[in-house]
Amino acid sequence: MIQKSALSPLFKSGISRKMGNFTLHYFPYLLELKHVFTVASGSRSSTPVVLTALEYEGFVGYGEASMPFYLGESHETVIEFLNKVDLSSFQDPFLLEDILGYIDGIAFLNTAAKASIDIALHDLVGKMMHQPWHKIWGLDPKKAPITSFTIGLDTADRVHQKVIEAEPYKLLKVKLGLGTDKMMIETIRKFTDKPICVDVNQGWKDKQMGLDMAFWLAEKNVVFIEQPMAKERREENAWLTEHSPIPTFGDEAVQRIADVKNAKGIYSGVNIKLMKCTGMREAHKMVNLAKELDLKVMLGCMTETSCAISAASQLAPMADWVDLDGALLISNDIYRGMQVENGRVVLSDSPGIGVESIN
Amino acid sequence: MIQKSALSPLFKSGISRKMGNFTLHYFPYLLELKHVFTVASGSRSSTPVVLTALEYEGFVGYGEASMPFYLGESHETVIEFLNKVDLSSFQDPFLLEDILGYIDGIAFLNTAAKASIDIALHDLVGKMMHQPWHKIWGLDPKKAPITSFTIGLDTADRVHQKVIEAEPYKLLKVKLGLGTDKMMIETIRKFTDKPICVDVNQGWKDKQMGLDMAFWLAEKNVVFIEQPMAKERREENAWLTEHSPIPTFGDEAVQRIADVKNAKGIYSGVNIKLMKCTGMREAHKMVNLAKELDLKVMLGCMTETSCAISAASQLAPMADWVDLDGALLISNDIYRGMQVENGRVVLSDSPGIGVESIN
Repeated sequence: MIQKSALSPLFKSGISRKMGNFTLHYFPYLLELKHVFTVASGSRSSTPVVLTALEYEGFVGYGEASMPFYLGESHETVIEFLNKVDLSSFQDPFLLEDILGYIDGIAFLNTAAKASIDIALHDLVGKMMHQPWHKIWGLDPKKAPITSFTIGLDTADRVHQKVIEAEPYKLLKVKLGLGTDKMMIETIRKFTDKPICVDVNQGWKDKQMGLDMAFWLAEKNVVFIEQPMAKERREENAWLTEHSPIPTFGDEAVQRIADVKNAKGIYSGVNIKLMKCTGMREAHKMVNLAKELDLKVMLGCMTETSCAISAASQLAPMADWVDLDGALLISNDIYRGMQVENGRVVLSDSPGIGVESIN
Repeated sequence: MIQKSALSPLFKSGISRKMGNFTLHYFPYLLELKHVFTVASGSRSSTPVVLTALEYEGFVGYGEASMPFYLGESHETVIEFLNKVDLSSFQDPFLLEDILGYIDGIAFLNTAAKASIDIALHDLVGKMMHQPWHKIWGLDPKKAPITSFTIGLDTADRVHQKVIEAEPYKLLKVKLGLGTDKMMIETIRKFTDKPICVDVNQGWKDKQMGLDMAFWLAEKNVVFIEQPMAKERREENAWLTEHSPIPTFGDEAVQRIADVKNAKGIYSGVNIKLMKCTGMREAHKMVNLAKELDLKVMLGCMTETSCAISAASQLAPMADWVDLDGALLISNDIYRGMQVENGRVVLSDSPGIGVESIN
């Protein structure tokens, strides 16, 4: 039953600040991608993250902020945010609503920085209750769905290599919206007939073209379409959703909980990501709200270590689809947590977010 | 840290059924009211309840079904429902979503019977985590609001006596809708100028009369109106809410979570009661949903022991108003739990729902 543990030595090189009964630790880290990653908005080979740890009475919770460049956060903005955090007025980490309300009020944006505190706090409190969050939330870990595995835009040879690499996965995810959509799908279909989901990242410019593509994709065993057109084009996305033979998901259109209500009638479902929505507490509320509004639920991620991925996976039993391959795409993970077995998310029974440091 | 405890001896006279790793105990009980209680639909001097206990690996959780006659449940219907419950296929009480989904599926109605399992299961799981549910839900117990204290329709002398009895309470609740509304308010105003909230129990028949009353009541320091007209008269309740100087709450109109969405635009807020909504898990979801829809939240109760009252009080820090006086109105409570100090709800730090047997 003893869950107390020493702080991972990785944090010794970072910043440590004692604030009342809490000590917050953080350091910047660069995730190296196994493959250069191309989406509609650009390419990259690494992703900056900031790793956090929160200590309280001998318990340690771990967290993470991941900052793909298009979110507007960087090592500097996250460190600057974390330097402002002062938990000294909170006596008890169980006051999640109050603490995370305070964190959210420090700045208007900085959702990834906020998530790095939210995740560490959940890990800490879960460890103090000796339970993983999927149990605290009353969920059945066996209901976690299969996860998709992303295949970036690339040459036919490299696509073939990635399809082989994706062998354990039951669902492939493909980024579209760069004008090479049919070619990409046809290339993959040379090598496998597994179901595919596509993320257009707002790349389609015309609703009729989008609908034609939706029908074409459905014939190719594509099972849903993420963010087909620009999020501001609400009426056109709604029209596409209404007429599409396969579901649509809002992603860029859905960041915080207020966006869930606004997605009703526009998309079939919402893609919830911890780094967009400030963390596990708001994500849990978003999943519940989406279900009440009869919206489908997808859990997504950025390129992240197993820390943030395992945090998101606690909600997997409530999701219709999960896209939690972020840690699989990097070569320098520093945590062991959520596993994928036969393409399915397997949640850890370990308390909190269920991760351990592997360095 | 040891929360395991022997089953209260009260349950020895009841039914006990072993089902897999669980043992379910239950017995019928009659709550005696300190005062005969009159509402728009009738009078009563006692309320039937069924008390439950759920054992698992040496832990015991307590629950309760309260059945005021207008809900259509009785000792017989609740016992009949509980006789059907079979938890033997569930390995783990933490599977709240699955277990309570199964319970909800046993019959269409029987919400109080369902709540008696939900509450016992929450008490059990909270004890296994060594934490009260307000902490598991991340709430600040200091944010629990004042509770109202109900004064029934009666003679001026008896109303005076009840106002004296209600001395510790900062908010009085009055049942209206029997054609004696102004007289009742004027009688109370002879003895105290404390704020009052009124529950019309669908008693008003005309929206213009209702609006005239709303303005008159607002002048008398009445702070909100519960269920002014019949729940079926949605347009008229909506019109009244739109024009009323004080908020309205749906009560009879709001039973399960699906009713929360439907209350938006009709009432200013919703009155959530465990016995209407099947228990703590759905109530928690309802509170969260109401907040996202900008509806005010009120927590109500039936005439109940401190068991069901303490269960509901775990959500009090999220409520705008609470009306949790059910255990204060009875003379034969068998639990000690939530306390009221200076009119304010004081939550227990004890795990689960925070009650102990007092017999």
